[in-house]
Amino acid sequence: MKKGEFEFIDTIRRRFPAPKGTLGIGDDCAVIPQKSGMDTLVSTDMLIEGSHFLLSDVKPYDLGWKSAAVNISDIAGMGGKPVATFLSFAVPKNTDDSFLESFIEGYKDISSQFGIPLLGGDTVASNGSMCINVTILGQAPAGKARLRSTAKPGDIVYVSGTLGDSAAGLKVILEGIHRGPVEEFLIDRHYHPQPRINLGLKLAMTDGVHAMMDISDGVASDLPHILEASGVSADIDVKALPLSDEIRQAAATHGWDVLRLALEGGEDYELLVTADPSADLRKSGLTPIGKIKEKSAVQITWLNAPYMTYNGYHQF
Amino acid sequence: MKKGEFEFIDTIRRRFPAPKGTLGIGDDCAVIPQKSGMDTLVSTDMLIEGSHFLLSDVKPYDLGWKSAAVNISDIAGMGGKPVATFLSFAVPKNTDDSFLESFIEGYKDISSQFGIPLLGGDTVASNGSMCINVTILGQAPAGKARLRSTAKPGDIVYVSGTLGDSAAGLKVILEGIHRGPVEEFLIDRHYHPQPRINLGLKLAMTDGVHAMMDISDGVASDLPHILEASGVSADIDVKALPLSDEIRQAAATHGWDVLRLALEGGEDYELLVTADPSADLRKSGLTPIGKIKEKSAVQITWLNAPYMTYNGYHQF
Repeated sequence: MKKGEFEFIDTIRRRFPAPKGTLGIGDDCAVIPQKSGMDTLVSTDMLIEGSHFLLSDVKPYDLGWKSAAVNISDIAGMGGKPVATFLSFAVPKNTDDSFLESFIEGYKDISSQFGIPLLGGDTVASNGSMCINVTILGQAPAGKARLRSTAKPGDIVYVSGTLGDSAAGLKVILEGIHRGPVEEFLIDRHYHPQPRINLGLKLAMTDGVHAMMDISDGVASDLPHILEASGVSADIDVKALPLSDEIRQAAATHGWDVLRLALEGGEDYELLVTADPSADLRKSGLTPIGKIKEKSAVQITWLNAPYMTYNGYHQF
Repeated sequence: MKKGEFEFIDTIRRRFPAPKGTLGIGDDCAVIPQKSGMDTLVSTDMLIEGSHFLLSDVKPYDLGWKSAAVNISDIAGMGGKPVATFLSFAVPKNTDDSFLESFIEGYKDISSQFGIPLLGGDTVASNGSMCINVTILGQAPAGKARLRSTAKPGDIVYVSGTLGDSAAGLKVILEGIHRGPVEEFLIDRHYHPQPRINLGLKLAMTDGVHAMMDISDGVASDLPHILEASGVSADIDVKALPLSDEIRQAAATHGWDVLRLALEGGEDYELLVTADPSADLRKSGLTPIGKIKEKSAVQITWLNAPYMTYNGYHQF
């Protein structure tokens, strides 16, 4: 794949224009209108051994949890309600049955929190890598799913929860750092992301909420998706980023660059939202971190961090 | 996976009972009722390098075609109309761009025959195997999708098209047999299966059509799925199996056991149907091959082949 993933996706997109009224490639989910006044939401994610996880490292329970959670989070990013998941699993021939049982245990525990049935799938014996694919179906009242393309100049940019904890947890794991309670908290955030389904459903019913997506690659990578799709730019105040006490404490102890973790770390599975100033989402527990502006040559202006540049136009 | 694929699926099924009114694991597709009076059908299939295909052998165009076709065929097996597909693709890092372009070409050519858009997916760089997963959504009027569980004693068993051609084509490829026009026909049937969407839609609207599925593993493996799900048995007349002139000719030339290819070969992607005798499906081009009976200790009785035994109770 020399041209890279995005060019391949562009090739597909050019060959398969989405039918009228349907939203295809380019958001957290596809949106397919039903005659019933509901829209069907669909997302699919693949995890492959060696790229997304190492069998020597990962606990099967955690892998099952995350396989389901990252898909559930795509439905949360649209403000939808999950309906069902479908699991395809290429299993290397020497895999223990106990691995598969623990995997399903983790998959079920996160699915059960939202009452999501697993309604089908495919299991295949693999001579090579372990490969897991989950497809999720969700639904939203017609036109209520929140897209990436609907941010408006003047909107406030919000995020839910705290940022960077998962990336910090991964750092603890990879660097073999001693694990006190603070480090254990961060590791748990890494292995057991909590999709923001209930918050997403609430925001989809809130007037003035314009664009929304889940944060899977970090705000610095994910916000540009909203900005590009909506044809706008943003000011982001890095001092406003919500940070957990645990990440602050661990960053102080271990000398981490906490802003880099919060902006670039990814796997937060929090929500990134833009809303009209009249809708004060602080009441819903969200944190304002900046403002949407008219399109500009500088896609993101980082406030309170004059040394910091990023994102195509700039670099850390 | 020591206990095997079916036990793993049973583990999943026990942990995820399908909600009331919903059909989960165990048919060609899951069936999810919508408020609109339509049912959503969902199926998903994974193909992994080394198990389902060899990169040294397969043409990317053919791999793309088959990846889509086997999923479209699952919708045909329910008598549904395809709505959209979703493609996940783990691509080894040294893969040529031209491979991906040809893959998408084949995927699009079979999808376009039925006007099926590709509405989303996931592409990931793989350090190991190539892995492809396709999920398909379809629809059928509420209650009209044909299941495996609804065969009735007295039903006639039918198949569409001809059987064994794909398996014979694979035999030509694997054994490096010289390719005349007859062999090329069989190879084309192997690489470019034609899902029976239009026939399936017609049968789903035909009174007296009871059970239906697509033939992916061969009648000898697939018919038992209908028999088990419906709690019935069957007499099958092996002399009645529809065979192409090409497979007869090639079998005579190369000394093949044509019945074994037709029954065990798989990848036909034809339809296997049971229907009340009042519905004469010969008019729709199907071939009657036997009859459904009450449940019995012998699941399938093979007529006109007294030497032939198979299927748990018997062996070839």
